[in-house]
Amino acid sequence: MSHELFAPEVREMLANQDYEGLRSLCETLHPATVAEAMKEGFEPDEIWQVLSTTDLRTQALIFEYLPITQQVELVEGKARPQVGKLIERMSHDDRVDLLQRLPPRVKESLLRLVDEAERRDIATLVTYREGSVGSLMTTDYAWIPPSLTASEAIDQLRQQAPDKETIYYVYVLDEPRKRPEGGLAPRKLLGVISLRDLILAPRQALVRDLMEEEIVTLHVEDDRRVAAEVLARYDFIALPVVDDDGGMVGIITHDDIIDVIQQEATGDLQRQAGIGPIEGSYLEARFSNVWYNRAKWLLLLFVLQTGTVYVMNRYEDKLTIAALVTCLPLVLSVGGNSGSQAATLVVRALALEEIVVRDWYKVLGRELLMGGALASVLGVTGLIRTYFATPPSLVDGPNLLTKLTIVLGLSVALACLWGTLLGSMLPIFFRWLGFDPALISSPAIATLSDVSGIIIYANVAILIFGLT
Amino acid sequence: MSHELFAPEVREMLANQDYEGLRSLCETLHPATVAEAMKEGFEPDEIWQVLSTTDLRTQALIFEYLPITQQVELVEGKARPQVGKLIERMSHDDRVDLLQRLPPRVKESLLRLVDEAERRDIATLVTYREGSVGSLMTTDYAWIPPSLTASEAIDQLRQQAPDKETIYYVYVLDEPRKRPEGGLAPRKLLGVISLRDLILAPRQALVRDLMEEEIVTLHVEDDRRVAAEVLARYDFIALPVVDDDGGMVGIITHDDIIDVIQQEATGDLQRQAGIGPIEGSYLEARFSNVWYNRAKWLLLLFVLQTGTVYVMNRYEDKLTIAALVTCLPLVLSVGGNSGSQAATLVVRALALEEIVVRDWYKVLGRELLMGGALASVLGVTGLIRTYFATPPSLVDGPNLLTKLTIVLGLSVALACLWGTLLGSMLPIFFRWLGFDPALISSPAIATLSDVSGIIIYANVAILIFGLT
Repeated sequence: MSHELFAPEVREMLANQDYEGLRSLCETLHPATVAEAMKEGFEPDEIWQVLSTTDLRTQALIFEYLPITQQVELVEGKARPQVGKLIERMSHDDRVDLLQRLPPRVKESLLRLVDEAERRDIATLVTYREGSVGSLMTTDYAWIPPSLTASEAIDQLRQQAPDKETIYYVYVLDEPRKRPEGGLAPRKLLGVISLRDLILAPRQALVRDLMEEEIVTLHVEDDRRVAAEVLARYDFIALPVVDDDGGMVGIITHDDIIDVIQQEATGDLQRQAGIGPIEGSYLEARFSNVWYNRAKWLLLLFVLQTGTVYVMNRYEDKLTIAALVTCLPLVLSVGGNSGSQAATLVVRALALEEIVVRDWYKVLGRELLMGGALASVLGVTGLIRTYFATPPSLVDGPNLLTKLTIVLGLSVALACLWGTLLGSMLPIFFRWLGFDPALISSPAIATLSDVSGIIIYANVAILIFGLT
Repeated sequence: MSHELFAPEVREMLANQDYEGLRSLCETLHPATVAEAMKEGFEPDEIWQVLSTTDLRTQALIFEYLPITQQVELVEGKARPQVGKLIERMSHDDRVDLLQRLPPRVKESLLRLVDEAERRDIATLVTYREGSVGSLMTTDYAWIPPSLTASEAIDQLRQQAPDKETIYYVYVLDEPRKRPEGGLAPRKLLGVISLRDLILAPRQALVRDLMEEEIVTLHVEDDRRVAAEVLARYDFIALPVVDDDGGMVGIITHDDIIDVIQQEATGDLQRQAGIGPIEGSYLEARFSNVWYNRAKWLLLLFVLQTGTVYVMNRYEDKLTIAALVTCLPLVLSVGGNSGSQAATLVVRALALEEIVVRDWYKVLGRELLMGGALASVLGVTGLIRTYFATPPSLVDGPNLLTKLTIVLGLSVALACLWGTLLGSMLPIFFRWLGFDPALISSPAIATLSDVSGIIIYANVAILIFGLT
């Protein structure tokens, strides 16, 4: 699917100064499509020309779909008053994201141009911790008091006319409460009613009697992963966010959760490859940030891997047979590959809460069987391969070949079994210690199994060749 | 968050035969919560006892949230008529999933108990390819003709009263069309109107004038990944699905898409670790299926890795210095780790369409710089480590130590740079060839870089030590 489908049209209309055409394009296409048309190869000035043809609300909708780096670029280079108006119309969570990425000077001068009520809203939202539910939520939702009838409630919603999908759950809120230290606390969340139920209800029924009081809520300090998990489990379109006293402070919507799930999946993939969290898409991420998050893991793994030098050194005088050294990398890779498979499955199962720490014995039992089943296949393959495909120059005499074959078959099987156990148990052990199981990345498990792989291989060789 | 929060309550009520209590539990809690309470340690008979306390619609809602394996177990062991009624009330996509997992005999005897209209609906849905939009969609959606006024439309929706969130977009459909071969074709999709806009519109406005005609649709044969991508991009709650003639055949809803995104992310993680697609959660997946999907990749990687034996054999007579052999695994791991990082970033960027094949030169430029920056850090660390931390028993004399230090520093840097280039370019090359770039998994790149790592290391050693 081409993302820049309408780019040539936009470019042509700009060249012909066809502002009427641009306006109709902005207003008939989905804002995401318009934004994608201008994602590449358009100057900030040109984008502002396109946006200016339509009303502020549509401008804001299109603007929100532009990549955040492009948003920053557009805002930094623009006369301020128009931007202030645009920010007033942006959705509450997106504009906070934008403001937090602006240089402080630009941000402050912008905030001065924004309505006082909106400024207070922004000031509250920016205080929440990055990655918390608070930092993700929007304060733009529909609410009613419990005393209305269904038909009064619908009339009131007509007046509130909130944006986008946020109207589909209507929150029932209490009278405002005074804070002991002065000022008003957020209204307490009493219940929720879906727009569907409101419309299907008898017109005179009271909201109080219609509303659902068993509400699934998020706390404003919850991690955004919790929000994703709860929304995925209950299939809601939105979830209300409350503070310590049950006061309603915002909602989290399904579209934000889809973004969270995508980002977390990318983060999980990166951690599995031994990469620190990288911000932004591949080509847009800052070079220094990417470098740092790759270099730190490569260095740590390199230092861990020096363990192999010491282990190799210990067995150096035993591995005097050339054929044994030649086959070493082959044996080591088996442990790394089987360990990386097991670690990935177990880390993912822990992340999705398919297993918890106290299931360790189930995992152990399963992976012992699995490790055995995999080890026998690889071991037999190792036997066959060594016997029939070892270069003759490596083995002078059938006696040496037989011994080498046995060493290879046995150590490949053992390395596979041991890698599988290491890969499956270490993530659970890490979780039990309170660490992130995802620290057991594929490269980390390969490094760990290299060290033990050398020990296994050398000892099997010593045993079979009768070395002392 | 505990998933089995209410399990003790349910168990106690069952023991006390407190059916009134169970009914109230089923009807006040979210169906997902009730299902989770019974997810573990309950016999099918007990679950049926709990379900039977409430009405069929609530039974179906709770039933849908049970894991599919448990659903199959429940249906197989139950007198049929009650199950037939339950299936009539289940959501259309979930019941097809269930029926497709039943033994053919059970499935057929069940289908005979289901209403004819529902049976036709099921028969249509099962024909779609696994993984297609058709296999994921539901046929339960709200629709109106274009000639109604807004207030007539709302009245009509009151009568249709469709389930759950599927009411929030109302599809505007044409008159039914006759098929040339007889029978009726699906009605053509003319437009869509959100429930929000319907409620905010003047009561006498015509649906024809209110509806959005620029509709984003999915084709019934599209891959479910396309559905996920489109829904994530446009932030819709649901998307209409059409056939070749633009006839409306169903909708895809946001909750199904969240499941798809989670499953695809799990699949991506598994492929990155060199695991074939595994069906079901960690503890529930069939042993033979998991074994097969791990063994096939381990075997393939093992065969590839035998390349190292041939390469090692070629350089065997050069690597006579003990210290060189000792440090070999250290050098090899650097290439694998840096390659695995690069491959993961590029594969993910390709999957999310952040880059396409024709961006290859941008990626090459970036990874050349990045590889250089990473190589210099690791190379310097390799120099320092070798010079100061090599076991004295390995190097007799400062001349050997100096040479070894240079060999290590140089080959670690080169292995890092080469691994980075291999990991970043191979996925793009695979995509260009028409293969899945995710075939370049972490273990695959480690195996490939092992072969080249030996060549690099041996040649650097030959150069520095002046071996012939």
